[in-house]
Amino acid sequence: MKKIAILGSTGSIGTQALDIIEKNPDKYKVTVLSCGKRTELLSEQINRFKPEVAVVAEESQAAELSKKHPDTEIIYGDDGLKKAASLGDHEMVLNALVGIRGLAPTYAAIEAGKNIALANKETLVTGGEVIMSAVRKNGVKMLPVDSEHSAIFQCLHAGMRKDVSRILLTASGGPFRGKSLKELENVSLEQALNHPNWDMGSKITIDSATMMNKGFEVIEARWLFDIDIDSIQVLVHPQSIVHSAVEFCDGSVIAQMGVPDMKVPIGLAFSYPDRLADLSEKLDMFSDGANLTFEKPDYDTFRCLSLAFEASKKGGTYPVVLNGANEVLVERFLKKEISFLDIQNTLEDVLNKHNPVYEPTLDQILEADREVRASI
Amino acid sequence: MKKIAILGSTGSIGTQALDIIEKNPDKYKVTVLSCGKRTELLSEQINRFKPEVAVVAEESQAAELSKKHPDTEIIYGDDGLKKAASLGDHEMVLNALVGIRGLAPTYAAIEAGKNIALANKETLVTGGEVIMSAVRKNGVKMLPVDSEHSAIFQCLHAGMRKDVSRILLTASGGPFRGKSLKELENVSLEQALNHPNWDMGSKITIDSATMMNKGFEVIEARWLFDIDIDSIQVLVHPQSIVHSAVEFCDGSVIAQMGVPDMKVPIGLAFSYPDRLADLSEKLDMFSDGANLTFEKPDYDTFRCLSLAFEASKKGGTYPVVLNGANEVLVERFLKKEISFLDIQNTLEDVLNKHNPVYEPTLDQILEADREVRASI
Repeated sequence: MKKIAILGSTGSIGTQALDIIEKNPDKYKVTVLSCGKRTELLSEQINRFKPEVAVVAEESQAAELSKKHPDTEIIYGDDGLKKAASLGDHEMVLNALVGIRGLAPTYAAIEAGKNIALANKETLVTGGEVIMSAVRKNGVKMLPVDSEHSAIFQCLHAGMRKDVSRILLTASGGPFRGKSLKELENVSLEQALNHPNWDMGSKITIDSATMMNKGFEVIEARWLFDIDIDSIQVLVHPQSIVHSAVEFCDGSVIAQMGVPDMKVPIGLAFSYPDRLADLSEKLDMFSDGANLTFEKPDYDTFRCLSLAFEASKKGGTYPVVLNGANEVLVERFLKKEISFLDIQNTLEDVLNKHNPVYEPTLDQILEADREVRASI
Repeated sequence: MKKIAILGSTGSIGTQALDIIEKNPDKYKVTVLSCGKRTELLSEQINRFKPEVAVVAEESQAAELSKKHPDTEIIYGDDGLKKAASLGDHEMVLNALVGIRGLAPTYAAIEAGKNIALANKETLVTGGEVIMSAVRKNGVKMLPVDSEHSAIFQCLHAGMRKDVSRILLTASGGPFRGKSLKELENVSLEQALNHPNWDMGSKITIDSATMMNKGFEVIEARWLFDIDIDSIQVLVHPQSIVHSAVEFCDGSVIAQMGVPDMKVPIGLAFSYPDRLADLSEKLDMFSDGANLTFEKPDYDTFRCLSLAFEASKKGGTYPVVLNGANEVLVERFLKKEISFLDIQNTLEDVLNKHNPVYEPTLDQILEADREVRASI
């Protein structure tokens, strides 16, 4: 019986993870749940899964939930997340938090010797160097929970790491694939939220429309698989059937395919090296996957993707400010305060003006994040 | 330095294998070469590679070659092949013979503890049970040398064997894909020899046109990967970029892709678990692989494919007579003595009339083969 702590249990990844756990009661037990705003859903989840600990955002929410659930310890805030991730006897933390608030709990869990199922992109985008060095030092496993990195992780098994020549990271291209910069000037929030293949949270859906999401995935892959960023190639593949691929030095390309369903990477992170049966609909190659197409990304139009490569090459706190500024800008776009292209244009300015810290500590990363948010 | 014996060194696989070895003189040394009819090419190869032993078909050829190459022991015939495969200090035998004559040398090599790089389909089509049990008994490695089985072998690394749900074996569909039975009545030898993607020997090219080749590959895969034949699904994929795939129980499909180039599977069999650099052109996913399509095979038109499934399910010597009769019939078709459809129609009759032996010994397999050849 594997005990799992879930940070961000009321979001898209969190709820799917709980479905998997509920269907495999002989294999998994949830010991920690957490939410941001959705305390009602969390309360239902506490009834269903009876965790030892639950984490909410505010002290007042904690007080209220404590009355309803006397058998579960309810804690709160960023400190609560760190404690819940690191204390207790769970062997794995699924970090499905959104945003840089995921970084410190991941670090705390690693230092406490917990394996990580990582769905929180910002952990590696902002703290890749610190985090991966902690992973190595503590000898824990870091298992990716998104379709692309899980695909790469699976494909890498087909050969030795030294023989990898390229990682081919696929991108759907989002709702605005093929559009020109001019055409992007007046796109609406509703259009940006209309992702062709994946049903995700609104922050990630916008990041997918700007391709910032793909840029972050490139940075994540760079750290997760310890590979030079120039050996990562983004491949636009509108059908989202090939979730990514690895090319080896002999010319052999190993690809992972499937219907777009996050339960596959979540399940694999839980069960690795085993696999859980029937997590997802089977891919019917005679219909769904009957026609797979691939094309180059348009780096000039989707500047966020280029900025991610640039920020990662510059190193230090550049990716931190790229992420922090993007989080603020996407929030503004979601509130209809700025236009779609304002996101990438402002990010470019932010990177140009940034005074970086190299080899930053966790505190310096969080400080750079706070600074950039205050500055725009 | 790995010493390798090559049976069938003057054919398509053999010559490509020698190219790889010549480019990697620090890694590989050829100790055995062999040919059927092309003694002139063999003589050149002896000069280039200076093997300890060379095998020819006839005693007279051996006598002639011995004069030219006093430092190489020249032996002949089926006994010569068995000796060359099993004696000597090579650790691997590349069996690139064509036809059932490949069976006995594979068996002899396995019994002598040699690892096998298997390009000879007939070894497993006719002797799967005997051969794989000898592989297990002697603890040797059996590495597939054709693009489909090498692909499956690579993809299987991404998970545990118990979690495999299906093998998806791809087929180009050959030159007659999409044709009706009526249209196949009058196809010419030249049309059948015109394979869209692969440059191979004439026997295999015809087998590809009838899809018998794919049927044999299904039987091979059944033995090589110890999987129920009903868990193997043939997938027509005209571009020959995806060389095959494995579906796991969680819905994840792992596929191997590349430009069609036999050097990749040959090289992998030699170097496994390492890979040799730059064996093949790299797959450019933005152009070559830009559009990948998949469709169902037409089992009613390409009866050879159905017959292979049927013969394998019936078991015993059924696949032996399917193979033996097919070898004779393809030869007749190559001589323009029979029509294209005569091949599959006659095979169906042969299977219907066959009196099988179950769990046949090596001798019984060879006897069933001789009998069917005499009978048609």
